[in-house]
Amino acid sequence: MDGTAIHTATRSATDGMQEELFAYISRYMTLTEEEKAAIEALNLFREFPKGTVLLKAGETSDEGYFVMKGCLRTYYMIGGEEKTTAFVTESETLAPPCVAAGGPSELFVACVEDSIIAVSDQRMEREMFERFPRFESLCRILSEQLLAKSQASLDAFKTSTPEQRYLHLLEHRPDLLQRVPLHQLASFIGVTPESLSRIRKRISPGVRH
Amino acid sequence: MDGTAIHTATRSATDGMQEELFAYISRYMTLTEEEKAAIEALNLFREFPKGTVLLKAGETSDEGYFVMKGCLRTYYMIGGEEKTTAFVTESETLAPPCVAAGGPSELFVACVEDSIIAVSDQRMEREMFERFPRFESLCRILSEQLLAKSQASLDAFKTSTPEQRYLHLLEHRPDLLQRVPLHQLASFIGVTPESLSRIRKRISPGVRH
Repeated sequence: MDGTAIHTATRSATDGMQEELFAYISRYMTLTEEEKAAIEALNLFREFPKGTVLLKAGETSDEGYFVMKGCLRTYYMIGGEEKTTAFVTESETLAPPCVAAGGPSELFVACVEDSIIAVSDQRMEREMFERFPRFESLCRILSEQLLAKSQASLDAFKTSTPEQRYLHLLEHRPDLLQRVPLHQLASFIGVTPESLSRIRKRISPGVRH
Repeated sequence: MDGTAIHTATRSATDGMQEELFAYISRYMTLTEEEKAAIEALNLFREFPKGTVLLKAGETSDEGYFVMKGCLRTYYMIGGEEKTTAFVTESETLAPPCVAAGGPSELFVACVEDSIIAVSDQRMEREMFERFPRFESLCRILSEQLLAKSQASLDAFKTSTPEQRYLHLLEHRPDLLQRVPLHQLASFIGVTPESLSRIRKRISPGVRH
């Protein structure tokens, strides 16, 4: 992570975010006041300007990201070109594969927008699991759900055409089409920007691209 | 699951498998005799002939599969055609997404070969976690590793051509090329059987297909 770009999020920017994070966790378990205080003391929130690269290929990391506000993107550099593989937005988790697999990262993680991210590391996790064993139970459940989601995404990608992928985004993630540059979106659904342009024209011929 | 196809694996077929399963778990934690006895008492091993469908689209399930011997395949029925998305072989886990996500399965799971599978369900997991909390820790770690693997597979698929995918299999999973029918392999790497045939000819022109 680029040290110069990291700073603890300012108080005003994260107003209410601690509550939002508790509300998210409360879907899975009711937090005690002691647990809430311990989470708050971790001081998880970090603020990053648009374009910040949080993780580079070749680096190791033990950090996981939970997006409070903004959008992260994972990408690979292949033949000098960026290949975008995922967008991660509010209330979504990004656990870069290198954290569990060990070794250097193959992917990059960058902020598509100004973002506020809850950043946790392995030491924090260990300490919290020791102090509050049921947090490990929570993490197991969340990991299993993320796994189900990742497998479903892989299968959906394998069994669909680029046009079907675009239509799926249009229906389920219309916000992404507004938030993300078209060339990244094209890469994400596995086509060139020109092909994406043709797909968009076919679908809504009146719209300017 | 088709009730007629299920039967507890015979003693001779699973000889030594309990030890293999313990050896696998021992990579992550040293099992006590009490824990080993509890796992053995779960009577996890099931024997399925080639072709058995373990899970159908539309069904719900709370079962996870760990392959002791043989090969499972996940596939979707799309426009009357099977689209294969994964092969799962020895010492690999398959947790169908519907188990964590709830609701009916979108995918099918079938045996590509005669297989012996350790089949666990949510009730077993709950009981084991209650009795041996550190099994939950193990499951968290395994889920995180499966998640890393699933994300890496998704990214690899998105950033590669069918020919690159075939070459990757040739290098890393040559056994699969022997074990799996070519039309399933073609579907798995995202091409028609004819395209796979052309890829194979390009790579090794002397080989008969």
